[in-house]
Amino acid sequence: MKMDFRWHGSIVENISQNTTDLLKVEHKESYAAWLQYKNIDDQTLVNNYKQWCGRISILGASVVIESAKKELLLGISSMLGIEPDCSSEPMQASLVLATNASIVDLVDVDFDQLNDDGYVIKTVTSGGKNTIFLVGKNDSGVLYAAFHLLRLMQNRKNLQQLDILENPKNQLRMLNQWDNMDGSIERGYAGNSIFYKENEFSDELNRIEDYARLLSSVGINGIAINNVNVHKVETDLITSRLLPKVAEVAGIFRAYGITTFLSVNYASTITIGNLSTADPLDPKVRQWWKDKAEEIYSYIPDFGGFLVKADSEHRPGPFTYGRNHADGANMLAEALQPFNGVVLWRCFVYNCLQDWRDRTTDRARAAYDHFKPLDGHFHDNVILQIKNGPMDFQVREGVSPLFGAMENTNQMLEFQVTQEYTGQQRHLCYLVPQWKEVLDFDTFAKGKGSEVKKVVDGSLFQYKYSGITAVSNIGNDYNWTGHTLAQANLYGFGRLTWNPDLSAETITDEWIGQTFGHDELVKELVTKMLLKSWSIYEKYTSPLGVGWMVNPHHHYGPNVDGYEYDVWGTYHFADWKGIGVDRTEKTGTGYTSQYFKENTDLYEDLKTCPDELLLFFHNVPYTHKLKSNVTVIQHIYNTHFEGVEEAEGLVETWSQLKEKIDQERFEDILKRLQEQANHSKEWRDIINTYFYRKSGIKDEKNRKIY
Amino acid sequence: MKMDFRWHGSIVENISQNTTDLLKVEHKESYAAWLQYKNIDDQTLVNNYKQWCGRISILGASVVIESAKKELLLGISSMLGIEPDCSSEPMQASLVLATNASIVDLVDVDFDQLNDDGYVIKTVTSGGKNTIFLVGKNDSGVLYAAFHLLRLMQNRKNLQQLDILENPKNQLRMLNQWDNMDGSIERGYAGNSIFYKENEFSDELNRIEDYARLLSSVGINGIAINNVNVHKVETDLITSRLLPKVAEVAGIFRAYGITTFLSVNYASTITIGNLSTADPLDPKVRQWWKDKAEEIYSYIPDFGGFLVKADSEHRPGPFTYGRNHADGANMLAEALQPFNGVVLWRCFVYNCLQDWRDRTTDRARAAYDHFKPLDGHFHDNVILQIKNGPMDFQVREGVSPLFGAMENTNQMLEFQVTQEYTGQQRHLCYLVPQWKEVLDFDTFAKGKGSEVKKVVDGSLFQYKYSGITAVSNIGNDYNWTGHTLAQANLYGFGRLTWNPDLSAETITDEWIGQTFGHDELVKELVTKMLLKSWSIYEKYTSPLGVGWMVNPHHHYGPNVDGYEYDVWGTYHFADWKGIGVDRTEKTGTGYTSQYFKENTDLYEDLKTCPDELLLFFHNVPYTHKLKSNVTVIQHIYNTHFEGVEEAEGLVETWSQLKEKIDQERFEDILKRLQEQANHSKEWRDIINTYFYRKSGIKDEKNRKIY
Repeated sequence: MKMDFRWHGSIVENISQNTTDLLKVEHKESYAAWLQYKNIDDQTLVNNYKQWCGRISILGASVVIESAKKELLLGISSMLGIEPDCSSEPMQASLVLATNASIVDLVDVDFDQLNDDGYVIKTVTSGGKNTIFLVGKNDSGVLYAAFHLLRLMQNRKNLQQLDILENPKNQLRMLNQWDNMDGSIERGYAGNSIFYKENEFSDELNRIEDYARLLSSVGINGIAINNVNVHKVETDLITSRLLPKVAEVAGIFRAYGITTFLSVNYASTITIGNLSTADPLDPKVRQWWKDKAEEIYSYIPDFGGFLVKADSEHRPGPFTYGRNHADGANMLAEALQPFNGVVLWRCFVYNCLQDWRDRTTDRARAAYDHFKPLDGHFHDNVILQIKNGPMDFQVREGVSPLFGAMENTNQMLEFQVTQEYTGQQRHLCYLVPQWKEVLDFDTFAKGKGSEVKKVVDGSLFQYKYSGITAVSNIGNDYNWTGHTLAQANLYGFGRLTWNPDLSAETITDEWIGQTFGHDELVKELVTKMLLKSWSIYEKYTSPLGVGWMVNPHHHYGPNVDGYEYDVWGTYHFADWKGIGVDRTEKTGTGYTSQYFKENTDLYEDLKTCPDELLLFFHNVPYTHKLKSNVTVIQHIYNTHFEGVEEAEGLVETWSQLKEKIDQERFEDILKRLQEQANHSKEWRDIINTYFYRKSGIKDEKNRKIY
Repeated sequence: MKMDFRWHGSIVENISQNTTDLLKVEHKESYAAWLQYKNIDDQTLVNNYKQWCGRISILGASVVIESAKKELLLGISSMLGIEPDCSSEPMQASLVLATNASIVDLVDVDFDQLNDDGYVIKTVTSGGKNTIFLVGKNDSGVLYAAFHLLRLMQNRKNLQQLDILENPKNQLRMLNQWDNMDGSIERGYAGNSIFYKENEFSDELNRIEDYARLLSSVGINGIAINNVNVHKVETDLITSRLLPKVAEVAGIFRAYGITTFLSVNYASTITIGNLSTADPLDPKVRQWWKDKAEEIYSYIPDFGGFLVKADSEHRPGPFTYGRNHADGANMLAEALQPFNGVVLWRCFVYNCLQDWRDRTTDRARAAYDHFKPLDGHFHDNVILQIKNGPMDFQVREGVSPLFGAMENTNQMLEFQVTQEYTGQQRHLCYLVPQWKEVLDFDTFAKGKGSEVKKVVDGSLFQYKYSGITAVSNIGNDYNWTGHTLAQANLYGFGRLTWNPDLSAETITDEWIGQTFGHDELVKELVTKMLLKSWSIYEKYTSPLGVGWMVNPHHHYGPNVDGYEYDVWGTYHFADWKGIGVDRTEKTGTGYTSQYFKENTDLYEDLKTCPDELLLFFHNVPYTHKLKSNVTVIQHIYNTHFEGVEEAEGLVETWSQLKEKIDQERFEDILKRLQEQANHSKEWRDIINTYFYRKSGIKDEKNRKIY
């Protein structure tokens, strides 16, 4: 190990040598995200921490444990200004890293209480000497424990009497990169790919390693490294031309306990396999995939498996051959099964050539209609990957009724950390509160208490595989995420996959402490900004759950009729009388019936349907009174005026922190918040004007509408 | 001369060798457009024609006269199956080509009656022997006379007693290619450029020569060969790297009497000139352009001049330096003046970052507001190039009030043959009737009878330079124009530039005869289709002159609010009560006052404003009664249902010609007409639904609206 290894030194400088001008040393805070490891200036605390950190003992050796050691050395030296001694001799050490295999009886750990990746952090006093033990169920557990300890130190916690046992609630805690090999990122708002450039792999591997550190620090253990829309060149990722590079990247992630997956082209047998078919029941096709899996595993023995978008938005799939999704997924699952690989089969399947004149077809129904009938038909190494809502990552929509609806089929939840519909990292929209609502949504699949989080952690139906995944929000911008505050979404997503029961407040507080330090005003104001931001964004964009009032294709900015007469199945049906999509059983598309009875009843009845989802489930007159006793039209006006005021408030609030945040991050964020405040006015005026022009109903408060 | 030179033979085959697979010999009819020169099967007529065509005498020699000879030999041999003798001896000839300089006293021609490019075609009987004389004022006149004779023959006219004197009404009869050097064409709907490929000049010069023949045959005498939006690579067209190639292309056009122009980047002094400014009053800038002009003329002695889009849609211009358009144009004019070059300065200048909330700013006013105050400030080799309407080539808009408003400034009219807003050559929209309306529009600049055509032919104000130009509609598709019937627009444009007084019926009849032959049913039905097509297209698209209800950017297909909340200044202001733009003096933007009094009064008053422009000038309730006694909303419904029926009628009508048209052209056209009929339903349903949803007013006839 190089002892001069430094996050703020060699890594950043190293990167600045072989990457763009942007990555200069001055970007260190922006780049370091929540792994700042800032020098602690409270000398009492430094001295207290030093007693634990001077002598580290590492029992056992593996690439993952080596990462834990490296991270600890980096964090300790950076925060405390000392270079710890390292040895494999536990007796003299104040900090001991170990697994079950290596620890024997130095400390009392009940390994039966630990799941895979779980760990214990325990301060043990013995013979007048204190020792902190970081004990993992496996090597990754040790690494997570190390990150946990560093988090405690970054948050100035007392280490005196630690007695922590942590198990990840979810088995699979993943990210999906929608990166293309040409270097672009689908729905990427923070520069280009850190993985690819000009149809080759990037040679800036340091950047990928730093990404792995960020992910591992919040418990992510899987990554699919290419876009689910697999174009021609990416189809080659599973060929001998590119597999050596995939293996190299997988090696970087492996050292941080992260398993690598690939998105594959369902039609690979045709595109690269010299077969004339991709029929999943064709023996030649099945054999081709078996051979292909064997080849992949010869390069990457712990390869995770395939992520597949099939028969969706013009992607090929089993439908072409009169087969169903189970046929398609199982064929791939069989090929991966000998190697313990899994198939992540996406349920984002709908008719994207819908006729807007046809009000009976409802895109919201599609995933359930396609997949529910196939429950039990999938192999046990297939996981259905289901977006949180039935539409597509809107600022507000119902929860997908598919959760809980398939007792015999592994399910996994897909979020979108990248802010496709929530401001594209130009607007602040902290999504942890939204994700919490989804995770806490009670499906009633097995009666009360059947929350989505219990479906996807596998406990409700004892799934063999399950978990949570999301589309990443990072790119090669020097601050990773475009909007520096969007780093909080990546952090929060990871923490929630580890433990969906963490409160938004806890996660926010952790993140701010590590990212910006411990000034009380910073904590107070940034917390307020983050926690209000989703609500602010919702206020000035599409109202009451109706969604989709965005410019087509790129999805940025207001356009009320943007998709209204299009093929994508995303409508609001606003006319002179009212607005909303009737998805009831009684008079509408019947989508409400896809939920379990309690939720069907809740949404079906105008009286009980929550206001925030009103237009998602019902078409109502503009004069309909909400539970707040305000009419729909007046609610639209009110929230849009309020949303702008609150967006302007974000600028004001942030401005108060000028002296408390380093200049670069302060100004980066200020600029984005100002842009947001300006752009929120476009939203306000276009939405309000649209509905005023359509309804003819004036704002009660006579504010300016055009 | 190669005697085996054949349009249907060597040229097409030649092209098929070094171009795409599309250009096979089987495309000969599609490719030949209106220069079919089909073998005449009426033997009486053949024998009659033969008496004139057996012996041709060519007096004088030049590249242009050589082209006339080539074309005559090609046409005669192809139509009559004979190879004429050629000599420079007039006495034995039955067909004599000559100019003033060469003819001496063989035939009585009053050259004073001929303008530049004018000609006489005369059958002279002397000593029992008939001779047809094709006598031009200059070489181009001879070429035009040759094309005229071939047109007569293609249209089976009697040549017995010809006594024709033709002068072009317009001095400049131009086309603008919006071709980019990467091979793309801005607003091109017929494939890629025939001029450029991959940032170099194309090496398929035959194709350019055939294009020159088509243009010359209808009297076009100028062409700007690159897009008015001059990007980086095209800026180099005026450098020594590319001028040799420009000269080569100019040579091809020169042989057909066509002068070559270039669109130039106003900021060339910065981009390629190593200066730090493009200030038109800076002596270094002025000198640079003078030197540049000298350089260009050293390559192309008869270079036409510069076409300039400045201070428009983000193009650079004199405004940057606090100068005005006259400063900018005059600076270039001075540089070109020693070489008799001209500056074509576009008046398409407006604020493209307008705030939709601001109803006082009116894009329609922009050209007049910018240029009218500068009347008399331009050098006499500057020509202002003005689009037909104040907006942008909509299916219907007012005529630009700038015509007639600048007594002391050369003006030129710009049409758009490429169908940017009129169906993009996927829909049939024959524009000759539209252009006729513009040309015949009375500006009242010098009292009644001050039609636009008299402004731009220079006669009203005795302009030194003037004329008509248009954006071309051709690309490298095997039929030139995508929609084969769109060839008629190119033909008709050329003919109208020659003589704006030609009736639409005459032009249409000429074109059909040459393109499809002389079957009576073909003539009847195709005439009907063409002449009705503009009205059909208008019916199912944006109503009553309001324009712009198209998808942004590409401008294809319906989108009522597509530009309604955007920066482009193109609005309809539809609300629950009514629709339209109030451009009156009394209550609106005051645009009506830009016209001369007779027109101001006409448009200002709701009672006299023509229905077809009602919403262009007024905002009215949906219940407003049109002169037809139908309400605006009912008119919208009626025309949209009718438009679709009539578009379907086009398919039916064309289908009747299955046995009468060669298979390729029949099917190409049928396919486009079917696409149009389908797409017209999208238009109908989206427009009708939009207005029904907004107004709440039902269709009186209860037809299906969604």
